Amino acid sequence: MTDLKLSGAVEADQRVQDLVERMTLEEKLAQIVGFWEKSDGEAVAPLQGEFTVERTLDEASRHGLGHLTRVYGTRPVDPASRARWLWAFQRRLVRETRMGIPALVHEECLTGLSAWRAATFPTPLAWGASFDPELVTQMGAAIGGSMRALGVHQGLAPVLDVIRDPRWGRVDECIGEDPYLVGTVGTSYVRGLQSTGVHATLKHFVGYSASQSGRNFGPVHAGPREVADVLLPPFEMAVRDGGVRSVMSSYTELDGIPTASDPSILTGILRDRWGFDGTVVADYFGVAFLQLLHHVAGDLGEAAGLALAAGVDIELPAGDAYLEPLAEAVRDGKVDEALVDRAVTRALLQKAELGLLDATFDDEPPTDVELDTPEHRRIALRLAEESVVLLSNDGTLPLRQGVRVAVIGPNADRPEAMFGCYSFVNHVLPHHPEVGVGIEVPTLRQALAAELGSASVLSARGCAVDDDDRSGFDDAVRVATEADVAVLVLGDHAGLFGRGTVGEGCDRDDLELPGVQRELAEAVLATGKPVVLVLLTGRPYAVGWAVERCAAVVQSFFPGEEGGPALAGVLSGRVNPSGRLPVSLPRSAGAQPYTYLHPALGGDGDVTNLSTRPVLPFGHGLSYTTFTHTDLAVEPITTTDGPLVVTVRVTNTGERGGDDVVQLYGRDVVASVTRPVAQLLGYQRVHLERGQTAVVELVVPAARLAFTDRTGERVVEPGDLELWVGPSCAERETQTRVTLTGGVHRITADDARWTSSVVR
Amino acid sequence: MTDLKLSGAVEADQRVQDLVERMTLEEKLAQIVGFWEKSDGEAVAPLQGEFTVERTLDEASRHGLGHLTRVYGTRPVDPASRARWLWAFQRRLVRETRMGIPALVHEECLTGLSAWRAATFPTPLAWGASFDPELVTQMGAAIGGSMRALGVHQGLAPVLDVIRDPRWGRVDECIGEDPYLVGTVGTSYVRGLQSTGVHATLKHFVGYSASQSGRNFGPVHAGPREVADVLLPPFEMAVRDGGVRSVMSSYTELDGIPTASDPSILTGILRDRWGFDGTVVADYFGVAFLQLLHHVAGDLGEAAGLALAAGVDIELPAGDAYLEPLAEAVRDGKVDEALVDRAVTRALLQKAELGLLDATFDDEPPTDVELDTPEHRRIALRLAEESVVLLSNDGTLPLRQGVRVAVIGPNADRPEAMFGCYSFVNHVLPHHPEVGVGIEVPTLRQALAAELGSASVLSARGCAVDDDDRSGFDDAVRVATEADVAVLVLGDHAGLFGRGTVGEGCDRDDLELPGVQRELAEAVLATGKPVVLVLLTGRPYAVGWAVERCAAVVQSFFPGEEGGPALAGVLSGRVNPSGRLPVSLPRSAGAQPYTYLHPALGGDGDVTNLSTRPVLPFGHGLSYTTFTHTDLAVEPITTTDGPLVVTVRVTNTGERGGDDVVQLYGRDVVASVTRPVAQLLGYQRVHLERGQTAVVELVVPAARLAFTDRTGERVVEPGDLELWVGPSCAERETQTRVTLTGGVHRITADDARWTSSVVR
Repeated sequence: MTDLKLSGAVEADQRVQDLVERMTLEEKLAQIVGFWEKSDGEAVAPLQGEFTVERTLDEASRHGLGHLTRVYGTRPVDPASRARWLWAFQRRLVRETRMGIPALVHEECLTGLSAWRAATFPTPLAWGASFDPELVTQMGAAIGGSMRALGVHQGLAPVLDVIRDPRWGRVDECIGEDPYLVGTVGTSYVRGLQSTGVHATLKHFVGYSASQSGRNFGPVHAGPREVADVLLPPFEMAVRDGGVRSVMSSYTELDGIPTASDPSILTGILRDRWGFDGTVVADYFGVAFLQLLHHVAGDLGEAAGLALAAGVDIELPAGDAYLEPLAEAVRDGKVDEALVDRAVTRALLQKAELGLLDATFDDEPPTDVELDTPEHRRIALRLAEESVVLLSNDGTLPLRQGVRVAVIGPNADRPEAMFGCYSFVNHVLPHHPEVGVGIEVPTLRQALAAELGSASVLSARGCAVDDDDRSGFDDAVRVATEADVAVLVLGDHAGLFGRGTVGEGCDRDDLELPGVQRELAEAVLATGKPVVLVLLTGRPYAVGWAVERCAAVVQSFFPGEEGGPALAGVLSGRVNPSGRLPVSLPRSAGAQPYTYLHPALGGDGDVTNLSTRPVLPFGHGLSYTTFTHTDLAVEPITTTDGPLVVTVRVTNTGERGGDDVVQLYGRDVVASVTRPVAQLLGYQRVHLERGQTAVVELVVPAARLAFTDRTGERVVEPGDLELWVGPSCAERETQTRVTLTGGVHRITADDARWTSSVVR
Repeated sequence: MTDLKLSGAVEADQRVQDLVERMTLEEKLAQIVGFWEKSDGEAVAPLQGEFTVERTLDEASRHGLGHLTRVYGTRPVDPASRARWLWAFQRRLVRETRMGIPALVHEECLTGLSAWRAATFPTPLAWGASFDPELVTQMGAAIGGSMRALGVHQGLAPVLDVIRDPRWGRVDECIGEDPYLVGTVGTSYVRGLQSTGVHATLKHFVGYSASQSGRNFGPVHAGPREVADVLLPPFEMAVRDGGVRSVMSSYTELDGIPTASDPSILTGILRDRWGFDGTVVADYFGVAFLQLLHHVAGDLGEAAGLALAAGVDIELPAGDAYLEPLAEAVRDGKVDEALVDRAVTRALLQKAELGLLDATFDDEPPTDVELDTPEHRRIALRLAEESVVLLSNDGTLPLRQGVRVAVIGPNADRPEAMFGCYSFVNHVLPHHPEVGVGIEVPTLRQALAAELGSASVLSARGCAVDDDDRSGFDDAVRVATEADVAVLVLGDHAGLFGRGTVGEGCDRDDLELPGVQRELAEAVLATGKPVVLVLLTGRPYAVGWAVERCAAVVQSFFPGEEGGPALAGVLSGRVNPSGRLPVSLPRSAGAQPYTYLHPALGGDGDVTNLSTRPVLPFGHGLSYTTFTHTDLAVEPITTTDGPLVVTVRVTNTGERGGDDVVQLYGRDVVASVTRPVAQLLGYQRVHLERGQTAVVELVVPAARLAFTDRTGERVVEPGDLELWVGPSCAERETQTRVTLTGGVHRITADDARWTSSVVR
């Protein structure tokens, strides 16, 4: 098998080399750019308006074509008719271009294939909240299946940016604030997607999420140790453990160097250190931004030369810099054609791997494409259920039988409220108000009515997500007064570039709920009725007031097409909530940036009057049952080369069955550099019936204990380590201390990066 | 002269070497620690309570003593009697210790010698606002004169931390957000202080001001380029151009490495690169914090070893780590005694330089010490006047003759409101409420009554700075209603560790005016009377609302003992305001961190919905006259090795005389790394009578154009440079573009760091 694969690879190498040798410069450049037949005026990428497409697809594909950009995802189109067009176009490339190579078709797919009527799953923060990588793998496979059926070869997901500041609008696309959680969940997505033959793309390599004040495209103030220990590890896991086939360079600049122009990152770390052998694609317009925004290039030819030399193989969405400007730079001797050859070789090797060098497209395109099957629905529902985080509860939840509920708020009855900014619904459909959402999306009001009976559910919108119209308050107060419990459904609407309250280009300089939603909550609270606050958001908000004053607070990070039933189930008690916060619940925008991975800051009042704590910590989440964690133990052999074998007993001590997320944290007591006061070392979701006990064994490899020392090496140092398990990073329910012995252990590629686990 | 000095130095070297060779380990260690006879429970340093003094001064000085910590600055004491005690103690050290070496006496002196009844000058932000380094030199010399008279040898000032986040409480001690402004003004302070023979100490080397979310002691997220191009330059100027004799290591950690343990900073950059040959002192308890807070040392002996090896020569305020713990580490062979010898040698060389190795203290101590002379007063007044920034004015200012004024607000009639947190008044006197302020401090109410006549001035406090008592609002509204104009005097009270609204340990997670001051302002605005808002603060606040709605807004950064008359003069028109913002006026806490030195961020709306602009930009400040700037020109020879000779014509086009601050900004159009959209290249305060014109010539050296390239070298690159002069960094009143020719110029020690100027 290995030999066959190897010989296949050698054969592909030879074949690609032959192709490249036969290609003209124009043919080469055509293979390293995309073409986007986008509609002008529907901005779904930053500064899109700056780039006017003057050439037609026919002109653009005369010499062949590298990528077809967003064939299904730019407009609401019937998938089958679009597939017919695509097959015909590919056939034309095969038959009518000199090299006869079809285009690689890429599409957005973060929460499902971004296409009309395709299944739309929960957002990445919800994946993080589920702490369930296996389920995310299933989701990835389901997404990949749809893509493959439609002739899409590469998906621009997942986003592995570690959350550093909740003000940033693209937090909505991220998994969490812990690099290990991001790495495991993100890699699971990659495995799922790639199991179908579709290539995943890691975004955004690297640093994008750490921008100044959470502002999109802001400069990143991070030193090399922070980059190595926090921002890079998820990417490393997805490359080394997930075998990802593509990586997208980031828009960001890191300490003054735009990553799209940085060979030390795109080549040095990614390829030379990690052994990545796939393609690096540019973020949309990112090559041109080296000139337009970063001003490290004087013209597009220079920008192309910088990006190409750094290791950006393919320019997306189109060839703004890699066509004429690069051609001219090569002809003028300013850019070595060998760099072009390197990129083309990688692009063609990817096509070989995808079978595109042999594809004829003589087969029939799919005619009956079902993009939202029962299997999609099953996965979407389960992931939604597992991702709901019960932040607080005075016993009002689950709702008592026969209770009369007033469902109030702008997100109570709005299907779009279930989706993130990279969903087709919120990314594309706002430009096409004439077509519907396209898929069945029960709102929370509808789902609750189905669950409790329509007669038990009153409703009122109260206000919009983000304007100052208070005219609906009276109605909201009225229905609250008539009911036994008010379920207040507030939060975000996801959108792009100022069209949403969260999403790409929708950053915030405060973390209060948008618009007059807080005022609506105050009005409803003033009725004296118990208030259950359900948050449908794309970022954590500063809702300390609600945690203090509401009967219960339920946090759902855009839960997808089955979010309504999942949430209704949690409220009714049919579903026992088991999500855990993948991000700290912030105190305020003015307390940002914040991460639970901070070094010791002194006790409250020691060195600053400000608290060092968020409203609720990373890992927090309640259940309708209770779990205890006891007997944390470590196997006697504890050396710096690992692994640590840790066991802990978890017992369901409450009245009903449920899932717990066992969370193992550690702290290096003394190290050569400062270390976080808590760090997630491993986790495991466990289902336990009432009274049931399990022993969870977590095998923590050396790589999980490693950090970058003063010489720049990633090492495990001997010395004491505190370990604990508890209901969040901040609480030590059972703890122990071990002494790592042996010398300083330098991490190698062979050190595992995952904490494996067994539940006994 | 040079030869004499050199032979003196050689002689001192030999003498010190002899001394060190004769010393026991105990005698050596005694020379590299301080002793602080502090009063328990009066915390003026972080975590002070953790460090209990068990030894008496007699015990501590048995083997000699390195430093005497805060002899005058810990309690209100009569300077003459304290001097008598000091002389006697020094005599005892000379006569009764084996080595016979007196102690070096150090004291805080940021805004004047921190001693009872000593002159207290404006705070550093006010120095920055004055853009008048020469006047700051005079102030430094005046401070040094007082210190020298009292037998104080070293002052723990100035603070050269470049402001990166206004939420940080110690912004109150900083000069501004531009490294060149900080460098020139700070170096001027050093020159003034050291001109009297007193050694200055640069604080805090390096990175402290860039802590996460502006939280004191928070980790610093900064890459090496940001450190080199923003944080280090002021220190380099004060070392190379100012010849500073001492540097204090910072509490901070920079990308995981506490600077007090970092040889690459304390030795590599400071000594090896910059040639510094003075002493490095620890910030108070900073050596112990390597164990207690940073956890990079397992015990105090390890902490001592790390600090000593990094280059911290002297532990302050006392020998928590450098006495027994270090002695034990040396005896156990864990720390090389040669490192102790290196530190002792430096400590003794400093004492030699100060004349302490020959001092007998047989002279009489001063008996009649005047610490607040007319000369002090003159400098304090002029600096206060030059530092007042008129932010906005609809013509209400200057006040019309005969106008009836209601002076309202918590800072209108409170002498302490004139001072920063490191003033003796706010640092120490809160612990001694029984003694008065000790110096004559006319409040703004008093000064305005003196200026306008008591009959014209009504007053009311309205509220306190920082509680929620609104009972004074009615009275405030009443006097406003009775007057023609309301002068609302709001802002901070400076204090330490939660006792103030600004100052060390008094950070904020919002930038609204503290307490109910905004509400008081709304109540007074509601009267319809024109409101002149005067801000007495230690940081810039988010007062966009006031700039929009008040008749005028006057910003004064704690203006010192003559602040009242200076502000009254500005309000009455006797003084024409000429201060300029040394920091951006922020939009909100949630928009932080922010600096005007940001790279291109895209236009508003391009990549984020948030604005890229502050409320008012760096450099902004109005006058009662108007100035135009025209005819910006550059000499034809413009090569990368500089200098650029830039001329600009400035004309007073208004109705009265006044000072303008000519500000030259530049922008590198295309560079190998991202560069700020604006950068201060030079400035010059100019006095012009009505109708008068001057041509200002600024000679911008290569060092001012340099930045750190991708190889880590500081260079000037060839290419285009935009230059402009205007009323702030954000407005280009006259501009030009030059092309720098020649090769990449690598900056050396010989490249001047100052922009020299001539006014013609």
